[in-house]
Amino acid sequence: MTFEEIGEWRKTHYTVEITPKLVDREVILGGWVRNFRDLGGMRFIIIQDKFGERQITLKKGVVSDELFEKSKMGYQYCFMVKGIVKVFKAAPGGIEIIPSEFKILNRTPEKLPIDMSGETISELDLRLNNRALDLRSKRNQAIFGIRGEMLNAIRKFLLERNFTEVTTPKIIGSATEGGTELFPIMYFDKEAFLTQSAQLYKEQLSGVYERVFEISPCFRAEKSRTKRHICEIFVLDVELAFGDMYDILKILEELVYYVIEQIRKNQMSLLKCLNMEKKTILPEIPLERYKYDEIIELLDTKYNMDVEWGEDISTEAYRKLGEQLQYYYYITHWPMSIKPFYIMPSKEAKYSESFDLQMGMLELTSGGTRVHNKQQLIDALESKGLNPKSFESHLNVFDYGMPPHAGFGLGIARWITFLCGLDDIREAVMYPRTPDRLTP
Amino acid sequence: MTFEEIGEWRKTHYTVEITPKLVDREVILGGWVRNFRDLGGMRFIIIQDKFGERQITLKKGVVSDELFEKSKMGYQYCFMVKGIVKVFKAAPGGIEIIPSEFKILNRTPEKLPIDMSGETISELDLRLNNRALDLRSKRNQAIFGIRGEMLNAIRKFLLERNFTEVTTPKIIGSATEGGTELFPIMYFDKEAFLTQSAQLYKEQLSGVYERVFEISPCFRAEKSRTKRHICEIFVLDVELAFGDMYDILKILEELVYYVIEQIRKNQMSLLKCLNMEKKTILPEIPLERYKYDEIIELLDTKYNMDVEWGEDISTEAYRKLGEQLQYYYYITHWPMSIKPFYIMPSKEAKYSESFDLQMGMLELTSGGTRVHNKQQLIDALESKGLNPKSFESHLNVFDYGMPPHAGFGLGIARWITFLCGLDDIREAVMYPRTPDRLTP
Repeated sequence: MTFEEIGEWRKTHYTVEITPKLVDREVILGGWVRNFRDLGGMRFIIIQDKFGERQITLKKGVVSDELFEKSKMGYQYCFMVKGIVKVFKAAPGGIEIIPSEFKILNRTPEKLPIDMSGETISELDLRLNNRALDLRSKRNQAIFGIRGEMLNAIRKFLLERNFTEVTTPKIIGSATEGGTELFPIMYFDKEAFLTQSAQLYKEQLSGVYERVFEISPCFRAEKSRTKRHICEIFVLDVELAFGDMYDILKILEELVYYVIEQIRKNQMSLLKCLNMEKKTILPEIPLERYKYDEIIELLDTKYNMDVEWGEDISTEAYRKLGEQLQYYYYITHWPMSIKPFYIMPSKEAKYSESFDLQMGMLELTSGGTRVHNKQQLIDALESKGLNPKSFESHLNVFDYGMPPHAGFGLGIARWITFLCGLDDIREAVMYPRTPDRLTP
Repeated sequence: MTFEEIGEWRKTHYTVEITPKLVDREVILGGWVRNFRDLGGMRFIIIQDKFGERQITLKKGVVSDELFEKSKMGYQYCFMVKGIVKVFKAAPGGIEIIPSEFKILNRTPEKLPIDMSGETISELDLRLNNRALDLRSKRNQAIFGIRGEMLNAIRKFLLERNFTEVTTPKIIGSATEGGTELFPIMYFDKEAFLTQSAQLYKEQLSGVYERVFEISPCFRAEKSRTKRHICEIFVLDVELAFGDMYDILKILEELVYYVIEQIRKNQMSLLKCLNMEKKTILPEIPLERYKYDEIIELLDTKYNMDVEWGEDISTEAYRKLGEQLQYYYYITHWPMSIKPFYIMPSKEAKYSESFDLQMGMLELTSGGTRVHNKQQLIDALESKGLNPKSFESHLNVFDYGMPPHAGFGLGIARWITFLCGLDDIREAVMYPRTPDRLTP
C-alpha cells in the first residue's frame, strides 16, 4: 500500500460550507468515503467530514482516465479531493463536486468490522470494540453533536450566572461519602481512592467562590451490568452559597430549559436524524414539584402499590410513575433516613431538604440543601455510622465561615440518553468503561 | 454558638456591583469579614465576596446599640448585611454601607491557622492544609480569577475554530506511552492504570472529529519533589487532522496571544494585584522558531556549553538559554531518538517533526506531527523497545482511514505559574496532589 502525503494541500472548506454560492469555484475537501456507487461510466463518491457530506461525481471522459481509475476507493478510505463546485439538485446540499485531483491518505481493508454503509446498525459491543470507526456513523455524529451543544450550553448558562468553573482532585485520601464501590489505588506507599463524586470539594469551594461548577470524571466501582450504569462517569456538579434547595430547583429547571432550547435551535437536524424532534421538546417551567409523600400516596391510590414510608421507590414503582408523569418533574422532601449525611434535614426532621429531578421513570439528578454547621455535620456522620475522624480535613473547613449552601449533581451521559432517545448509556459515551470493558 | 438562618434573605448584589449609582438604595450583601477596625465609637468592617470587597461603617448612635454590639465579628465570619449605600471616597469603590441588620451565618475561632489579614503570607504547606480558607485571600482570588479567564479564553478560541471538546477515558487497560510512572489501580479483578495523557485517544478522535480538544486530569506517579511537579495535572490536549506541525505552531501561538490578550483586557486588576501587569504582556507573533541544532550551536558559541547531539538539553543549559531568550519561543526538529514513538520523523530521519514551546528557561508545551501509517507506527514502537501487542486496540484504528494529524499538550497549572509569576506550581492548583500530599 502506498500512501500519498498531504504536503501543501489544506482543506478550503468543510462539506457543509459547500453551497450553491460557491458554484464554479475550486475547493479542496478532506474526509472519508461514506458511500459510493459505480454505474460503469459514472461513479459517485459521498465524502463525509466533521460536519456533513457532499457528492463527488466522476464521468468517464469528463475526468481523466487516471483519476477515474483512482476513484475506485473503499468505505472509509481517508482522502482529499480538489475539484469544481457544480449545482446538482438531487445530491446532498444540492451540490456536486467535479474532481480534478485526489490524494488517498489512508486505506481500509475490503471488509470493515462493522457496517459503515448506514444500512444496518452493528451490535453495540462490536461497535464499541471499533469505536473510532463507529463514531464516524451518522447516528454517532448526531449523538455527539448534541452532546457538544449540551456541554457548551451548560457552560454558557452557568458562566453568565456568575458560576466559577473549579477543578477538584480525582485522587482522594479517604472515602468521599463513606461509600463502598470505590476503586482503590496505590499512591506511592499510601492507599488512596478514585473520587466517586466532587461533593465535598464543591461544598468547600462554595465557601470561596459562592457559585461553583465542575464537569469532570468520577469513578464508581459498581459491578452492575445494566443499560444505565458505567464505571467512569462524567458529571456536572453545581453548588451555590447563600441559598437553599429552592434556589437550586429554579436554576436547574432553567438550565434544563436552556439546554433543550439551544439544542432545538442549533442542532434540529441532528435531533431529526435520531427521530427525537417531537420528543425532546421544551418543558414547561416551573416544573411540577411533588413531595415524596405525595408520590407514595399517588402510587397507593392509583396503582395500589404500597411503598413503606422511609423506603426508596422501587424500579417497578418508578415504571408506574413514568406512565403518569412522562416528562421532567421534581420529587422533593425525601425521608432523611435514605439521604446522605451532608443533606439538611427539614424542620420536621424525618424529612430532608432534598430533591430528585425525574424524567419519566428515570432519575436524572439528585440535590438539596447541605448542612453547614460543623457540629450538626459531625452528628449526621455518626448517625450514618461513619467516623468523623476520616472526614477531619473536610470538617475543619466548617470552622472557617462556611455559608449556607445547596447544589446538585447530574450525569452527562444519562441526560444524553434521554435527549437522544438511546437505549443503552454506553451509546452516550465516547469510550465507555464497564466491569467488562477497559478497551479501547 | 448560635447560628442565624438565611431564611428569606438573598444577596441583591455582589460587592463590586455596589457603585455610587446605587446611593441611598437598600442592598443585601453576603460574604466574609476580610478586615475590621474598632475605633471605639466607630467600627469598620470590610466584607469580601466572590468578586471584591466593600466597607461597612457603624457609628455608635447612628446604628442601634444592638447592631453595634453584634458587629463585633472576627476574621472570616460568614455573614449577610442589609444596609443603605452611601458615597465615601476613602473606602473601597468609593462607597460605604450603613447597615440596618446583620445575619451571622457562621463563626470562626479567634485564632485562624493562617494569616487572613493580608499582612503576611503564611507558609505554603500550612496554607494548603487549610486550602478552602486560604483560597479566600486576595492573592488567590487573583490567581484563580486569571485561571478562570484562561480556561474560558481557551475554550472560546478553540470552539470558534471548529474544535470539538472530547472526553477520553481516565482508566486505561495498558500503559499509554509505554511509560513507567503510572498509578496502578485494581479494576474489579483486572489490573488497570490511571491515564498519563490523552495522547492516543485524542489521536484516534482526530480521525473522527478532525479538530479535537480536551481539558482533563492526567496522573503522573513521579516521586520528584520539585516546585514544578505535581501528581495530578490538568492538561489541555489539542489535535488536528489534515495538517501537520506547522498548522499547530500557528494555532498554538495564536492561542497564547489570545489568552494573554483576554486576561489583560478583562482581568488587569488581578494582574496588578500580582505585580504581573508589566510581565504578562502580549508576545509578538509569529513567535521565534529555533531548530534544536541552532539551540545547541547557540549554547556552544555563546556559553561554551557542550550539548552532545541527540541528548536532551540540561536544566543548566536551559537556564542559560533563558537569559538569552526571555519570553515565548519555539524549539523545533528535535532528535527522533529522544521523542516518543508516535512522533513523525523528518525527511532526514534522525530529526523529528516535533517542537517545544518555551517560556524563557521553562518548557510549556510539547507537540508535533504524528505517525498515521500503521506499519510505520509498529516499527516505531519496536524501535523504542515497546511491544505492539500491548497497543493492539490503538493500532487497529490505523486500519480504518486515519488522517495525517498533529497536536500538542499543555499543562494548565504550569502556564498559570508563568502568567501569575508564581514560584511553586502548587500555588496554581486548587487542591494539589504531590507524593506527600493527599489531603485536603
